[in-house]
Amino acid sequence: MPREITSFSNATVKLIRALRDKKARRDEGLFLAEGLRILAEARDEGHLPRIIAFSEKGAAHPLAAEIIAETEEAGGDAIITTPDILSKMSGKDNAQMLLGAYEQPDTSLSQLDRTKADIWFVGEKLRDPGNIGTILRTGDAVGAGGLILIDDCADPFSVETVRASMGALFTQRLAQASWDEFLPWLRSGDGQLVGTSLNTDFDYAAAPYAAPCFILIGNESQGLPTSYEQACDLLVKIPMAGKADSLNAAIAAAVTAFQVRASFRNR
Amino acid sequence: MPREITSFSNATVKLIRALRDKKARRDEGLFLAEGLRILAEARDEGHLPRIIAFSEKGAAHPLAAEIIAETEEAGGDAIITTPDILSKMSGKDNAQMLLGAYEQPDTSLSQLDRTKADIWFVGEKLRDPGNIGTILRTGDAVGAGGLILIDDCADPFSVETVRASMGALFTQRLAQASWDEFLPWLRSGDGQLVGTSLNTDFDYAAAPYAAPCFILIGNESQGLPTSYEQACDLLVKIPMAGKADSLNAAIAAAVTAFQVRASFRNR
Repeated sequence: MPREITSFSNATVKLIRALRDKKARRDEGLFLAEGLRILAEARDEGHLPRIIAFSEKGAAHPLAAEIIAETEEAGGDAIITTPDILSKMSGKDNAQMLLGAYEQPDTSLSQLDRTKADIWFVGEKLRDPGNIGTILRTGDAVGAGGLILIDDCADPFSVETVRASMGALFTQRLAQASWDEFLPWLRSGDGQLVGTSLNTDFDYAAAPYAAPCFILIGNESQGLPTSYEQACDLLVKIPMAGKADSLNAAIAAAVTAFQVRASFRNR
Repeated sequence: MPREITSFSNATVKLIRALRDKKARRDEGLFLAEGLRILAEARDEGHLPRIIAFSEKGAAHPLAAEIIAETEEAGGDAIITTPDILSKMSGKDNAQMLLGAYEQPDTSLSQLDRTKADIWFVGEKLRDPGNIGTILRTGDAVGAGGLILIDDCADPFSVETVRASMGALFTQRLAQASWDEFLPWLRSGDGQLVGTSLNTDFDYAAAPYAAPCFILIGNESQGLPTSYEQACDLLVKIPMAGKADSLNAAIAAAVTAFQVRASFRNR
């Protein structure tokens, strides 16, 4: 049976609320996901929350009731509470009526199996949590295996990233590594490292992509460092028609990835 | 000569600060852009701010000094002030050292010249200011003419949109209209209306696009209403490989637009 919480100062309320903070997420090894759609996606991928919190209305949906029951069967903590307390937990005025606190997955490179997909994203110093979530969502759509975050990226377990990923955080693999760890790992097996760059004349639409293809995306303001470009097997350019000389990082990732996928489908 | 402002309660400081609010932007007919990069892009497109505010450091850059001088020559108000007051104006802790308040352009459909570009974006009920800015930025990169916002979209003159557009708000045309205004306007001249949809088997990568091509993008959560899909000349589908059934609106816009452009280049 779910336990009822009616106090704003309850320890579990405080714990969930604290998960908006990166340090608390790391210390607890947890992250927050909100809304039936994302929790259902997680369940379908075999992920149940360690803590599930909901209002009476949130529990009324049959799918929500299923997820709540399965969470309890698996030993998770189920909490029924008020919309106000849910809003406090999520930090939003109009909170979702269903929240889950999930264990952070292992993000070491060694848990990745590169043979599982033909496309992988590699993000370097991505600072915008929305971009990281959007790249994960695009990865799901394009059949990618996951996203490897290189060097000092924004935390992929932030509320903003989870929200922008629309559940893809649970379907895509995630890894975190330094460049000096990543490059030897990449070279220990098959893999073509592809960078998008202005320092090439190779049109992205006519490039010889090879699977597994690792698409390297540079930092939002600086792009890729020269030494990282030099480590690539292939540099491609997305031709720019206008005044600007760059695309949003998540847009560049998507345009390249859909082209890579099209080239694989046309073989 | 720029006038110096040292008081937080100065009327111009209050005016600029108020521009973070949609109602004030509409009442004043102004919007805010921040940072040398965007102000320089605006100037290159022939747009100077009505008010320009900067710190001593912000004015030290030769390009900034040029823009400040030109703004004054054009009768604009130039204000030198402190970093703290600039932060108050922009509402950010780490404000840019250069801000401009610009007149909002005419956003009526009648000012659009559809013959100026082969690609146009049409957004329906887009709620995310970042998506609107990102679509403008993509429009610049792909050589689009501009973005037509249909029905109840987020304000394209918000600080978030201007920032995400990376200056493309000044290079792309912008229009705002209801669907009932837009459709007769569209049909009064050449134009292929293309919707991305799941309700078709027509692969976006093999579709017969025709210029000027108007790419219609639906609301972030609901997608396009059925009656809007029925009004399209062509519905195309971006095949999804994963669990999710949708892309971020700005991503779908970009993937489609780069494909349209590629099809025009290959003729």
